Amino acid sequence: MHIRNIKIRSTGKYLPKKIVTAREMDERLGVPAGWVEKKSDVVRRHFVEDETASQMGAYAATEAMKQAGLRFGDIDCLVCASGTMEQPIPSTASLIQRALGEEQSGVPCFDINSTCLSFLTALDVMSYMVASGRYRRILLVSSEIASIGLNWSDKESAALFGDGAAAVIVEGAEQGEGSRIVCSAMKTYSQGAHLSQIRGGGTGAHALSAQEEEAFLFEMDGQAIYKMAARILPGFVDSLLREAGCSIQDIELVIPHQGSAMAMRLIGRKLGIARERLMFITPTHGNTIAASIPMGLHEAIRQGRIARGSRIMLLGTSAGLSVGGMILDY
Amino acid sequence: MHIRNIKIRSTGKYLPKKIVTAREMDERLGVPAGWVEKKSDVVRRHFVEDETASQMGAYAATEAMKQAGLRFGDIDCLVCASGTMEQPIPSTASLIQRALGEEQSGVPCFDINSTCLSFLTALDVMSYMVASGRYRRILLVSSEIASIGLNWSDKESAALFGDGAAAVIVEGAEQGEGSRIVCSAMKTYSQGAHLSQIRGGGTGAHALSAQEEEAFLFEMDGQAIYKMAARILPGFVDSLLREAGCSIQDIELVIPHQGSAMAMRLIGRKLGIARERLMFITPTHGNTIAASIPMGLHEAIRQGRIARGSRIMLLGTSAGLSVGGMILDY
Repeated sequence: MHIRNIKIRSTGKYLPKKIVTAREMDERLGVPAGWVEKKSDVVRRHFVEDETASQMGAYAATEAMKQAGLRFGDIDCLVCASGTMEQPIPSTASLIQRALGEEQSGVPCFDINSTCLSFLTALDVMSYMVASGRYRRILLVSSEIASIGLNWSDKESAALFGDGAAAVIVEGAEQGEGSRIVCSAMKTYSQGAHLSQIRGGGTGAHALSAQEEEAFLFEMDGQAIYKMAARILPGFVDSLLREAGCSIQDIELVIPHQGSAMAMRLIGRKLGIARERLMFITPTHGNTIAASIPMGLHEAIRQGRIARGSRIMLLGTSAGLSVGGMILDY
Repeated sequence: MHIRNIKIRSTGKYLPKKIVTAREMDERLGVPAGWVEKKSDVVRRHFVEDETASQMGAYAATEAMKQAGLRFGDIDCLVCASGTMEQPIPSTASLIQRALGEEQSGVPCFDINSTCLSFLTALDVMSYMVASGRYRRILLVSSEIASIGLNWSDKESAALFGDGAAAVIVEGAEQGEGSRIVCSAMKTYSQGAHLSQIRGGGTGAHALSAQEEEAFLFEMDGQAIYKMAARILPGFVDSLLREAGCSIQDIELVIPHQGSAMAMRLIGRKLGIARERLMFITPTHGNTIAASIPMGLHEAIRQGRIARGSRIMLLGTSAGLSVGGMILDY
């Protein structure tokens, strides 16, 4: 089962100041009024104007520290778990450390990236370092600017996204406390590697190479992703539940990646999760890439939908194509 | 001390077919004959022509599997630990899985990035998952194409780099085997975040944004990095040795990141490491970013400079600015 006695000590969230309504998106995309909300379930989302990813990450981290009554000096490691980066070099985590004004702290900074599952992967991986005592307390930050890489001529994908950041502080838990990761898993099927992608901007097609504009923008084959996810997810979740020795009815709340309205309906229906047990923040956030799951967690705590000891499931799919899930007692 | 009973089971390396000599670099950079070798110590380096990062990573991984007598089915997790990416989405690890022809394997794939220290960070972080038994055996791949992002008008930095890939298979070790990580540490001081960087191509300055060409190319302030590293490294290495309870004389071989000739001389002189105990592959490889340390490890094993049980130190600096080190019994 690979239980890890760790605890999510606190969370923080930051949304950019600028709100973009579904109605404004309809106009920008040149579609009939109501189309964006109907297609995407996103009533409003936030887009950055002057905020950078590292600033947003620092704001979310500051809220998480404040909520826990901690200072940056209480943090042993800072991991940025985002699907986008602020600069190709250095790591976004380093830039967040700098944005926090902690540039002389020496706190180790690096990035973990599995696109939309980055937070889940980072929490999974880093929990072993916390459980072993290597790091007493860590700060995970997902900060995403999706808006800059949208392809506005691909209406279906452009309608989905929002910007923002979330931060989570993780620390060791005493066995009696009841907080723990029960089990977690990830699977990658790269037959779907090109179903959602940005082709240009890495070493494959450099930013300065002559490419059509679309190469540097997000593209996805929603139908094909849906088909792959629908085939893989039920068995994946079954095996996660089996490992935890519980059933889906024992999960108080599933906090999924808010990939798309279609993905959310898939999760609800295919996995037999009642609407009231499915955290749904798409209408007010959109798909905020890797920040989506920790934002859902932040809202679930804030809204009192989970309490200490609640058994929850984090779940999502990402480019790769990967599926990831975790059962944890909050 | 945070000992982890893990073993580096095998290693692999791939260098692009095309060799570029120091003399050819002199011509390309428009400097007097002999300048590049004198400045950089790089006699020859390899640059990609048609190879992609994922292909090179797959070649190196295949060699590592072959050396160990293993198939991909024996691998539980694939982590790409590179400072460059092939595409912004999906993870380079997913693309390596695909390049290996293992696209239906389900083996989890994600990236860990701390620029030049990515391999060291990934080995450090992932060793806890292996030691705990979560993953029985993992494949770490660093695959770098530096050549595409060089600023040829900045002769000093352009002279340093080479392309290539290295792969390492890590598995659990029995306590009696003698293979283990003794201790490891990383420190990030983001006051140096902008001393080596690529500014453009992330969300801070998008690939399609109007920027001067230089924004999308590597830039470094070598003098300032040298000064910071010279100040931080001695104390950092001292504390690592203290944690391991040994002295620098107990280290059979130091395998440093081959950052630059200047950095290598700094490590040798400031830390009191004799030339014969310092792995030096710069002349035939150049600085291959995160692939540099695992390439040094691969060569150290291949050349018989270390044997099972040898106590070695991996050490380096990276953009961030970060320093990282690990003492391990091979």
